[in-house]
Amino acid sequence: MTITETGGDPRTPEEPVPTGADGDEHAPPAGGTATIALIASEAGVSIPTVSKVLNGRTDVAAVTRARVEEVIDRYQYRRRRGRTPSGPGLIDLVFHELDSAWAVQIIKGVEEVAGPERAGVVLSELGGAHRPRQEWLDDVLARRPRGVILVLSDLDPAQRRQLETRSIPFVVVDTAGEQPPGVPTVGSANWAGGLAATRHLLGLGHKRIAVISGPVDVLCSRARIDGYRTALDEAGVTVDPALIRYGDFFVGGGYTHGMDLLDRPDRPTAIFAGSDFQALGVMRAARELGLNIPEDLSIVGYDDLPVTEWIGPPLTTIHQPLQEMAATATRMVLALARGEVPTNQRIDLATELVVRESTAPPRAV
Amino acid sequence: MTITETGGDPRTPEEPVPTGADGDEHAPPAGGTATIALIASEAGVSIPTVSKVLNGRTDVAAVTRARVEEVIDRYQYRRRRGRTPSGPGLIDLVFHELDSAWAVQIIKGVEEVAGPERAGVVLSELGGAHRPRQEWLDDVLARRPRGVILVLSDLDPAQRRQLETRSIPFVVVDTAGEQPPGVPTVGSANWAGGLAATRHLLGLGHKRIAVISGPVDVLCSRARIDGYRTALDEAGVTVDPALIRYGDFFVGGGYTHGMDLLDRPDRPTAIFAGSDFQALGVMRAARELGLNIPEDLSIVGYDDLPVTEWIGPPLTTIHQPLQEMAATATRMVLALARGEVPTNQRIDLATELVVRESTAPPRAV
Repeated sequence: MTITETGGDPRTPEEPVPTGADGDEHAPPAGGTATIALIASEAGVSIPTVSKVLNGRTDVAAVTRARVEEVIDRYQYRRRRGRTPSGPGLIDLVFHELDSAWAVQIIKGVEEVAGPERAGVVLSELGGAHRPRQEWLDDVLARRPRGVILVLSDLDPAQRRQLETRSIPFVVVDTAGEQPPGVPTVGSANWAGGLAATRHLLGLGHKRIAVISGPVDVLCSRARIDGYRTALDEAGVTVDPALIRYGDFFVGGGYTHGMDLLDRPDRPTAIFAGSDFQALGVMRAARELGLNIPEDLSIVGYDDLPVTEWIGPPLTTIHQPLQEMAATATRMVLALARGEVPTNQRIDLATELVVRESTAPPRAV
Repeated sequence: MTITETGGDPRTPEEPVPTGADGDEHAPPAGGTATIALIASEAGVSIPTVSKVLNGRTDVAAVTRARVEEVIDRYQYRRRRGRTPSGPGLIDLVFHELDSAWAVQIIKGVEEVAGPERAGVVLSELGGAHRPRQEWLDDVLARRPRGVILVLSDLDPAQRRQLETRSIPFVVVDTAGEQPPGVPTVGSANWAGGLAATRHLLGLGHKRIAVISGPVDVLCSRARIDGYRTALDEAGVTVDPALIRYGDFFVGGGYTHGMDLLDRPDRPTAIFAGSDFQALGVMRAARELGLNIPEDLSIVGYDDLPVTEWIGPPLTTIHQPLQEMAATATRMVLALARGEVPTNQRIDLATELVVRESTAPPRAV
């Protein structure tokens, strides 16, 4: 049941919605003809107070807000989608952490689609947290963007509901690979990436191949390692658990695991890293141990950031189409904002092996 | 003479300004009591039309807009600074080009200050142009941000006036080093950077030191080369014009000039590059020519991006405090938005030599 707002908001008047434009969305709700006035009356507050809650204003007591949210929820109230108060509107783009050239690829992808639509892109960073604070959400509700794009971050169910009741759609750019059903998501083919990287190394003749992935509790790490296992299995190579590492995606993690792996007597002849940055860390460990790349050690990265082309030696890596993923997510969120229902709400774009100079056959033993 | 608006804007009502809060800003203008109504009457249009022009709406004929702008200008009308329509407001951040980790440093600096103020940061990219199109400015006028920060880009005088008349302050983050007087700017000490880099190489015993700078028409390129000249002069080393190159700041430029410089019989033993990316290009050229760094060639970069610490060998470079420059610009624009007048409108932050492993004494001849 969907209830639309008829009470006005004095600060940001909504434009009339064309009759019949969105089908069901504007049909009289099955349960009655509830309005913002009904929400107010049920919650025992004034209509402007309901408006304030809908707009994320903080000058409403927490207990009142909670009560209003509860009634909104109970009636499955949905604010009618209007034009934003200021022209072509905004898109909110949220990073769990703004780090490195990786983020630039995402931003470029969003701008590529938002630019021609003249939607302003509002950038936020969660300072490493994977879940935004309520404060951030309040600001979003106040801004009333056309939509929200979350990168490697996630909303809790209450936050999701708050966006839904305000008819602000959201899409997750999820390189990690795990979102609840019903959350529109753009990801990439992690398992296939792990498979391609490992097959490449096997094809060069490597048998002792180590893998350093991301954190063990991030699904993409598991998917890539499963791809690695399958490739070894195909080739009849036994998996050595000592060669499978979980870490973080940063240089430091690559360096630490690289040092540990390369300092053993039975060191691997090739390492498949979880990110290009991690691969830089492995390269540094190799340098310090006097190992040449690719003669003594082959390395495959992940992501294909622009810098990989220029380091010495240029890095063989798995291309993750970050810019295209972000562009796809932006198109999806704008479609949702127009009231369209995408046929696919979970899209994985392909990953691809890019061979450069950091991989070669192992030295003959 | 400053004329304040008394005619209302039906879409984004301004909050009343506390009496006497800003001193002169709200004193009756010396020349009379002109209002938005006067602007409308002088321009022969309705009050809502003036409002539309002030808000960057495009549904006003170009010729009408031009006439209204002309009258606004003639009367030195300034819109009263009110709160933005939606809560804590926005800051517009504009890049001439969104490229690489360089941009991330700037974004992080802006977020660092805007975050605690809960101002949303709207990011735009001019696709390589150094001057925004009117379309972009219209969107900014419609959004009514608290302020605008321009990175390596610039407004023409008419665009500057349009922001001024709407009381939207702006600050330029200018690593290039040239802004008209009166434009609040945060830069860095380019000349001192050139001096420090060259002194470092001279101190190691180098005499044939080449410099690759940015484009010849960008002032920072000249400043750095002048610092280089002064350092050579101090040391009694004659400047060889063949060793001074202008290029672009990207990897490609470094590679091309590096190849050309290093392939000559009297090749330099050290190169001071205009950016870390350019230094990566020089490193690649050196690799291809079989030269080892730092044994055969010392290289100094510029910027100190995070990646320089991790490449092989880690790069000696000039630290340009991009994040701090962006944070300073953001503090400045927010102060201007509050009606404060910064004591310094042109701030250069210090640059600093960071010695890593890409520089060493030249081989004994």
